[in-house]
Amino acid sequence: MSKGIAKRSENYSQWYNDIVNKADLAENSAVRGSMVIKPYGYAIWEKMQAQLDKMFKETGHENAYFPLFIPKSFFSKEADHVEGFAKECAVVTHYRLRNRADGKGIEVDPDAKLEEELIVRPTSETIIWNSYKKWIQSYRDLPILINQWANVVRWEMRTRLFLRTAEFLWQEGHTAHATAEEAIAETKQMINVYADFVENYMAVPVIKGTKTENERFAGALETYSIEAMMQDGKALQTGTSHFLGQNFAKAFDVKFTDKNSKLDYVWATSWGVSTRLMGALIMAHSDDKGLILPPKLAPYQVVIVPIYKNQEQLDKITEKAKELMAALRAKGITVKYDGRDTHRPGNKFAEYELKGVPVRFAIGPRDLEQGNVEVARRDTLEKKIYPQEGIADVVENLLDEIQKNMYNKALQFRKDNTYTVDTYDEFKDIIENKGGFVLAHWDGSSETEEKIKNETKATIRCIPIDAVEEEGKCIFTGKPSKRRVLFAKAY
Amino acid sequence: MSKGIAKRSENYSQWYNDIVNKADLAENSAVRGSMVIKPYGYAIWEKMQAQLDKMFKETGHENAYFPLFIPKSFFSKEADHVEGFAKECAVVTHYRLRNRADGKGIEVDPDAKLEEELIVRPTSETIIWNSYKKWIQSYRDLPILINQWANVVRWEMRTRLFLRTAEFLWQEGHTAHATAEEAIAETKQMINVYADFVENYMAVPVIKGTKTENERFAGALETYSIEAMMQDGKALQTGTSHFLGQNFAKAFDVKFTDKNSKLDYVWATSWGVSTRLMGALIMAHSDDKGLILPPKLAPYQVVIVPIYKNQEQLDKITEKAKELMAALRAKGITVKYDGRDTHRPGNKFAEYELKGVPVRFAIGPRDLEQGNVEVARRDTLEKKIYPQEGIADVVENLLDEIQKNMYNKALQFRKDNTYTVDTYDEFKDIIENKGGFVLAHWDGSSETEEKIKNETKATIRCIPIDAVEEEGKCIFTGKPSKRRVLFAKAY
Repeated sequence: MSKGIAKRSENYSQWYNDIVNKADLAENSAVRGSMVIKPYGYAIWEKMQAQLDKMFKETGHENAYFPLFIPKSFFSKEADHVEGFAKECAVVTHYRLRNRADGKGIEVDPDAKLEEELIVRPTSETIIWNSYKKWIQSYRDLPILINQWANVVRWEMRTRLFLRTAEFLWQEGHTAHATAEEAIAETKQMINVYADFVENYMAVPVIKGTKTENERFAGALETYSIEAMMQDGKALQTGTSHFLGQNFAKAFDVKFTDKNSKLDYVWATSWGVSTRLMGALIMAHSDDKGLILPPKLAPYQVVIVPIYKNQEQLDKITEKAKELMAALRAKGITVKYDGRDTHRPGNKFAEYELKGVPVRFAIGPRDLEQGNVEVARRDTLEKKIYPQEGIADVVENLLDEIQKNMYNKALQFRKDNTYTVDTYDEFKDIIENKGGFVLAHWDGSSETEEKIKNETKATIRCIPIDAVEEEGKCIFTGKPSKRRVLFAKAY
Repeated sequence: MSKGIAKRSENYSQWYNDIVNKADLAENSAVRGSMVIKPYGYAIWEKMQAQLDKMFKETGHENAYFPLFIPKSFFSKEADHVEGFAKECAVVTHYRLRNRADGKGIEVDPDAKLEEELIVRPTSETIIWNSYKKWIQSYRDLPILINQWANVVRWEMRTRLFLRTAEFLWQEGHTAHATAEEAIAETKQMINVYADFVENYMAVPVIKGTKTENERFAGALETYSIEAMMQDGKALQTGTSHFLGQNFAKAFDVKFTDKNSKLDYVWATSWGVSTRLMGALIMAHSDDKGLILPPKLAPYQVVIVPIYKNQEQLDKITEKAKELMAALRAKGITVKYDGRDTHRPGNKFAEYELKGVPVRFAIGPRDLEQGNVEVARRDTLEKKIYPQEGIADVVENLLDEIQKNMYNKALQFRKDNTYTVDTYDEFKDIIENKGGFVLAHWDGSSETEEKIKNETKATIRCIPIDAVEEEGKCIFTGKPSKRRVLFAKAY
């Protein structure tokens, strides 16, 4: 099964594609840039969704659903937003097909042209603020704390499964507040929720920070992001949270009367994560044998493979496996028994390694006799024999340990590949030859940022929130700088 | 709050719209035919989704996700399907917008025309079977049991919130099998799952049956449906399950080798329910005071309203309410406390009646003194005083009773409005003057069905599965018939 995976060290990009394909996570479809998320990949996404949804609800948010289509004119209402989003979009121009006169298939009916074209949402600020206008009159109507799980479409030219696809799945939070302070607090709260999720569920450490003006969301006053390091040293932005000021309220004329009966525009935030998280999960942890899943997001945490020579042996092992499964499930551990007689144990082992199942049990006739079970961890590939008695406790601890170990390993990798540099030569050397994150001083100008990007392909991923205040000089211009920013090549 | 709802007996259609609007379930958007599902409405839909998803998984199905867009040519591959679905569709023809030369907004870029137009999925058989072709080679790859939660678009001319909208949310199951028998068994299993859900969770009785050829899904050999009676006597189809034979396998050339190494086309089913269920839920149970929710689908089952004259009283009531809430939650009962000081108790009562919350507690100073709580049921509007001690047990039983009562009431209503007739005059009288379901003999021809429909607007909703075999004569042609079919006007 694991045959046919390129080596990570030799062809990182092919290695990624191979894992996505061979672990049955997703595949390209007949529609350019649109993927099919296969059941095993979707099961991981469902685990992510369930946990994020819980965290959103615990922080007071409710779900709702807004239209897929947005009238073209809506995009023109917010000047920055239209530049950022209304360009590479799927445009609906007609609403009917008809049979061709020559009987050869169907064609667009020219009489069914829409008066105003509809854009398939690339993000929903405009259609949502058009609704909020009706919902908000007074401070009593605020805050509005809404999230939406939806599909969106951005007509990307170069696409890659999960990382960049024309259609992708995501959630987008859209909140409305009476004050700037409240909106800013919400923006920060949500980037913290994302960081909590990515670190503690995906086992991927992140750096929290704000985006430079260049990299900000189109229409935002401030964008917070979390940035994670992949195993090739590149950065992947795993979540963003935007303070939108009063820009969308002004564009859609959404005012409210405050407690003193004064009229003001409403303050806004938006925040989102997408199926891109799947890409981050795969690239942060996998190895040459396949996917490695953190126990908290694995569709099943344990798989049991029977080793047998005849039906009688299989029956006995199956009986024992049922007992063990009941004990595991009683502790909330998810487990799958693979009793298929069409596949050999070796093939099954390879398959579950490929699929990243955290813990594998093997049970043979001798294990039965001796009351043992062979336990293999996916993260370290270690195998150990344990007594069946009390195995549920062992696995419970082991899953915790795997979750922590995966996080620590990724953290150590990031530490080993993060550099603090003070000269542009050093900077270029690292970006070009080593890869990784570089902390360096920058003069704060978009011009410098742009030049560095053009020369090295490295971008400022964020201005880290916990950056230490220190006097320094911009590596490119020598102008004064007060803190280091995070540079890297990025997905 | 309940002011402004039309009377059900006077203007049924307006009554429905008023409830959807005033109970904050959904509203029309700026996009023709597309609705905004508001948080309270969406919370009910989420409850439905969660239960259905659980039932699908218990019957062995997995979720996946397929593209929103379908190449136009895919629709032409299955002859019946193209007639049924590829007409009133949203068509994507371009993938880019540009700034207008006159600086006034944006326009479609004529250079960004797609070579082949993309259809926004009205249903996904074609794109899914195009994927299944890659997944299926041998009987070992079967069955495939996949469900998808998605949005779909059908360009409906006359739309109504939840009942008929251009974009709607649904789930669509698509399964692939080695034999016709297995596919037929799956088709039946899923209509039974739907019937179980609608009856036991939505508290709406249904009649299971097969569709006539006229009313079958485009591309199906057999369509099973469940039909429910609304309070105006009309039928609403609440779920369908289709046996597709080998039609889609043939259209997309999906063959497999069976156990005897013989090559054959794969057998298929598809089945779906949508946000239309929300319409059924509203219309089956509500009254002139608003929505009435079955406890199993209510976002919160109990609401507590404090009755107080001053802050001290409120504080004491709040303290007691917290205790009661803990007791209720310990039993898995969902509860909301409404301590808002901006609204009077009377307004709150009206609001929760409008929103259909099954049970309402009112607690005032005298209740506190006497250790009591006033409990009101939404379904019967009865109020009763209970001791606080043991109230969680009382509510647990009460919620069960409300769930059953709502079902029984709807069942009784259906019985009272179902007629068995043997002449066309009687038939016309009932359809025209009384409304309801009519069981009558029919000669089995599409021609007769069509004529009856044109003359009376009644259609054959289904041929009930449990129809008794009996000799009879078609009410229209007098030709022989072996069983009665179910006629009604329908949504």
